[in-house]
Amino acid sequence: MPSRADTTVHRGRILDLALETHALPDGREAVFEMVRHPGGAGVLPVLEDGSVLLIRQFRPAAGGAILEIPAGSLEQGEEPEDCARRELREEAGMVAEQLQSLGWFYSSVGFCDERIHLYIARKLSRVERSLDPDEFIEPVVLSPEQTGELLARGEVRDAKTLIALQYWLLERDHERGA
Amino acid sequence: MPSRADTTVHRGRILDLALETHALPDGREAVFEMVRHPGGAGVLPVLEDGSVLLIRQFRPAAGGAILEIPAGSLEQGEEPEDCARRELREEAGMVAEQLQSLGWFYSSVGFCDERIHLYIARKLSRVERSLDPDEFIEPVVLSPEQTGELLARGEVRDAKTLIALQYWLLERDHERGA
Repeated sequence: MPSRADTTVHRGRILDLALETHALPDGREAVFEMVRHPGGAGVLPVLEDGSVLLIRQFRPAAGGAILEIPAGSLEQGEEPEDCARRELREEAGMVAEQLQSLGWFYSSVGFCDERIHLYIARKLSRVERSLDPDEFIEPVVLSPEQTGELLARGEVRDAKTLIALQYWLLERDHERGA
Repeated sequence: MPSRADTTVHRGRILDLALETHALPDGREAVFEMVRHPGGAGVLPVLEDGSVLLIRQFRPAAGGAILEIPAGSLEQGEEPEDCARRELREEAGMVAEQLQSLGWFYSSVGFCDERIHLYIARKLSRVERSLDPDEFIEPVVLSPEQTGELLARGEVRDAKTLIALQYWLLERDHERGA
């Protein structure tokens, strides 16, 4: 955990950056560059016919648009499941009767404490989308076969999206008795 | 791509932080907090008997030790495959005759350009490990069944490790005709 002598380099809109001193397992201390992030939630919507809904979203870090599941950062005091439902409504224009938790993961544990909570949403109904003014999002519906092909061609580039899609495909395999 | 008026907030040992102005798809501009990272490579070693080798590693961002595949950041000018082979030798004490590329992904594309290249290593031989002085790493060998249980219990918390293990399990399913 952070200790004395920590220096906050940047306090930002979606992240903070600090130089933190931590005790190593052998008792020595070392300074780590640490991105502190509130965490987030992502949700894979599975439609009635077994296809999934992804979004193609403009991302400066990727130099263009990439395929992702609906997702976003936790707002102050927000529970991960509420965040997933909010992003599902805002980005995909859907509400879900059923939300299955897939657990959470660290996106880049070497330098960042961001935890992303993942869900699969089923029994969906359409509502109006409500995008932020700087979000540019296009929905993309994919069959399991198309999803498998995209994965095989290495065209899914986003960590949370890969983890959710592979989880879903593994679950399908197991239901079919692999 | 970064444009005029970008401000570097921090130039660090493993990452830089900048406030960057990017054109949005509608032509307007917006400022983004952007962590710039050299990228990295991770490698899942699959042993002769079909088990995998993970490492338990101390990570300040996780507040303790977590399970990961051997991995690290690209050194200046280093190719991802060379990075994977280097980390395999340093962290797992192994060299591989066969390295299968699984592609690459963005760890957290909302605010960071880090790309992690993934590999599966097979036909392994043991060599001496050579850890950095602030790396505390313990090897853990897991059967496919143990790996499946860890995933099902949500005890794998690291993105690159989840993606590599899920990929490996899906490939196994497909080889067995799922």
